[in-house]
Amino acid sequence: MRTLDNPNTSDRLARSALARDEAVLDLDSYLAARAEAATSMYTNVERVPLSALSDWYTDDATGSIRHVSGKFFSIHGVDVRIPNALVPHWDQPIILQPEVGILGILVKEINGVLHCLMQLKAEPGNYSGIQISPTVQATRSNYTRVHGGNAIPYLRYFMDRARHRVVADVRQSEQGSWFLRKRNRNMVIEVTEDVEVVDGFHWLTIAQVNDLLGMDDMINMDTRSVLSCLPFIDMNAPGPLLGYDGFTRSQISSWTGEGAGLHSIGDLLSWITEQRAATEVTVEPMPLHRMTEWRYDGDVVSHLSARFFDVIGLLVEARGREVGRWNQPMLAARGIGLVAFLVTRVEGVLHVLVHAKAEPGIFDVAELAPTVQCVPENHADSPPASRPPFLDVVLAADPGRIKFDTIQSEEGGRFFHTRTRHVIVETDELHDHPDFRWMTPHQLTTLLQHSHYVNIQCRSLLACLRALASSTEGGA
Amino acid sequence: MRTLDNPNTSDRLARSALARDEAVLDLDSYLAARAEAATSMYTNVERVPLSALSDWYTDDATGSIRHVSGKFFSIHGVDVRIPNALVPHWDQPIILQPEVGILGILVKEINGVLHCLMQLKAEPGNYSGIQISPTVQATRSNYTRVHGGNAIPYLRYFMDRARHRVVADVRQSEQGSWFLRKRNRNMVIEVTEDVEVVDGFHWLTIAQVNDLLGMDDMINMDTRSVLSCLPFIDMNAPGPLLGYDGFTRSQISSWTGEGAGLHSIGDLLSWITEQRAATEVTVEPMPLHRMTEWRYDGDVVSHLSARFFDVIGLLVEARGREVGRWNQPMLAARGIGLVAFLVTRVEGVLHVLVHAKAEPGIFDVAELAPTVQCVPENHADSPPASRPPFLDVVLAADPGRIKFDTIQSEEGGRFFHTRTRHVIVETDELHDHPDFRWMTPHQLTTLLQHSHYVNIQCRSLLACLRALASSTEGGA
Repeated sequence: MRTLDNPNTSDRLARSALARDEAVLDLDSYLAARAEAATSMYTNVERVPLSALSDWYTDDATGSIRHVSGKFFSIHGVDVRIPNALVPHWDQPIILQPEVGILGILVKEINGVLHCLMQLKAEPGNYSGIQISPTVQATRSNYTRVHGGNAIPYLRYFMDRARHRVVADVRQSEQGSWFLRKRNRNMVIEVTEDVEVVDGFHWLTIAQVNDLLGMDDMINMDTRSVLSCLPFIDMNAPGPLLGYDGFTRSQISSWTGEGAGLHSIGDLLSWITEQRAATEVTVEPMPLHRMTEWRYDGDVVSHLSARFFDVIGLLVEARGREVGRWNQPMLAARGIGLVAFLVTRVEGVLHVLVHAKAEPGIFDVAELAPTVQCVPENHADSPPASRPPFLDVVLAADPGRIKFDTIQSEEGGRFFHTRTRHVIVETDELHDHPDFRWMTPHQLTTLLQHSHYVNIQCRSLLACLRALASSTEGGA
Repeated sequence: MRTLDNPNTSDRLARSALARDEAVLDLDSYLAARAEAATSMYTNVERVPLSALSDWYTDDATGSIRHVSGKFFSIHGVDVRIPNALVPHWDQPIILQPEVGILGILVKEINGVLHCLMQLKAEPGNYSGIQISPTVQATRSNYTRVHGGNAIPYLRYFMDRARHRVVADVRQSEQGSWFLRKRNRNMVIEVTEDVEVVDGFHWLTIAQVNDLLGMDDMINMDTRSVLSCLPFIDMNAPGPLLGYDGFTRSQISSWTGEGAGLHSIGDLLSWITEQRAATEVTVEPMPLHRMTEWRYDGDVVSHLSARFFDVIGLLVEARGREVGRWNQPMLAARGIGLVAFLVTRVEGVLHVLVHAKAEPGIFDVAELAPTVQCVPENHADSPPASRPPFLDVVLAADPGRIKFDTIQSEEGGRFFHTRTRHVIVETDELHDHPDFRWMTPHQLTTLLQHSHYVNIQCRSLLACLRALASSTEGGA
């Protein structure tokens, strides 16, 4: 029913829009609507050898995997050097997707409460079928029609920003160990006009989205990324707070740390500058079949240790998407990842411990990562000195100090059944480490107005941390 | 006399420091000291064929010019594509210098007035001999001693920041048409302790530096870059203003536009995001001798049209520097460049017209450039439609509306006699162009807390604009 831009049907949709605009669902009804949608919107996937992908080929000159159209994305080998890192030199496959896509959430005040227009979307890599996605989630290939599919609903709100209010609009990086310099444009646009609600889309309050973040594999990665960029305090119109209905500004300020902080923003920027100036990451192209630590036999790309991830082939049959059948390579992680924040109160203000982490695909040397970001089982046999800092603090945490613990999915268009445990652990110890700093949520959100400061794992976990603000436990 | 770090002499220097600390010179005495220094501190340069540089060679595999040590910098050919630009495809030589150097100014309040510790420094490319340089101007090769030279005075203040106050600390880009992704770390450190003043260094007030900016080829490029990053309002300790002694905070605020502006900072960030997301700049390596538009005969690299710049060889004999003799390639621009701001008042607040300009060596697609940035004589024969926007507005300006007009030098370590006219023109017309925006000095300075927003030409001109603030004409 992606017929928004079809002049023959838009009148009919417009007539029904006002009524549906107000038809905001309670959470149980929304979950029922999701279950109902799953009967008509799904993907069937079959895992096949990479050599069986009819639309993809391995380029002999560069040893990379490419689409026959030259579009979408490609998979390359790279040789990586990060001096002084735990592992200073390795090779690996990595996804190259230079174009900047749009991840956009449309927001609107309905009955005095801010709502987000969320999309139910099935992606072939999803572990759980349908996930809750931004209003628009479009690569440039999507919206310049490489697919030959239908128009993208609501895209025009994000293309014609002069008519609406821009709440957030910033390019942010994606996984720096899987993507080479990938950025997507994270946008939040507020409208006041009537909005047609087409099939598969629903208005949810921020509180409802936050409740859904407490469930496994429900809110997709792109939504978590965009939500993290939503300012606590509207940068364009100081005063109104976005999505924290029922809280006073002083309650929010005390929780987010507006105007407070163990370190000033200037000192934090200086520390980030130092971290980035001191490290030189070099990433050189290398043919996939020449990598020394990976085997590429034409069917699958795997690490010799059977760790990290595989590059696999998939045949996809989809209903409820623009194109019915296609084939593509995907990354499939081995093991479930872990991202964790240590959080504490400094003079009553919440602080999280972030890590300036260098990764090969990061655009500018290093970005702020969660306290812990790793796949724990990769370190099962590591001696203590080479285990990631604070991993054991998190794994050994008293259950009573674990404030958040769910499994979230990575993006289902590129990653197959790839999942990450998201944990927030309270501590009383003000840990000190030269590559880590305690920052307030407000400081992180201030940096999120700009590109390349906060990595996707940290943004995802920040969205979860913000969800705690709407519970008594987290906000108190 | 670069003996600061020598324990045998530091006591003697420390004893004389207090007296010299207070010996702040008036401008005439400083200019006399500069003339005196020129008798013992200078470079003799001889232009030679590139093939006569004993420490440099052309790499057959990549066709690039490199130092025998593998350090310092190298010169490469690149093939550049910027779709929709006035010139969408070309090739050119470009300097690669991946390491991040330090440009640092030490500041201190003396007799209640903020002073900068400035260095008289001769560089082989300088048009005018000695120029006024930051306290520290060091590539990483410098301070890790590739030269084998002496210790760098005052470097420790910038390495051990915990003991002092960090006023600014941010990596900024350099010329995007001459350098490939070059960044230097721009730092301002405030000290309260006694500082030894070694030969060739002097304390100057910001007002004195501003007066010197009104003279041709006096304040070097690195100083202009660092000065532009000095916040109007101290980001770490709101209240005191840096270097605007004699002005009230409300006078400064009204001039810089704090809290005001034709566009909100959020709308400006969204516009920058749009400009960067819409453009894909591709820069591919290409051997120097394979370039189609340039001739490299082993002696010099020149454009077939004899425009833009040449890559030349220099033998250097220096006094007053760490190393006495060396040889190196340099870029020598053809023609004098022009950078210009159109400025206007919007409801009493100063605004400058900036251009989101894509350049091949820029780190992130496009940065904010002056209203005009070009070499006018390159466009002498261009039809009106392909002339840079606003060039003719600036060239035809009524002399009474020209508020600033001097010639400034590009950095004399890489550029030979390469100079740029800096012009600020007042206008009453609120020009409108999709690639340009009116911004306040305060908004530009806010963005300068972060990397990659404001290009070197815009920073250099912003330093000149700030100099106007201390004159009645500019401040009124």
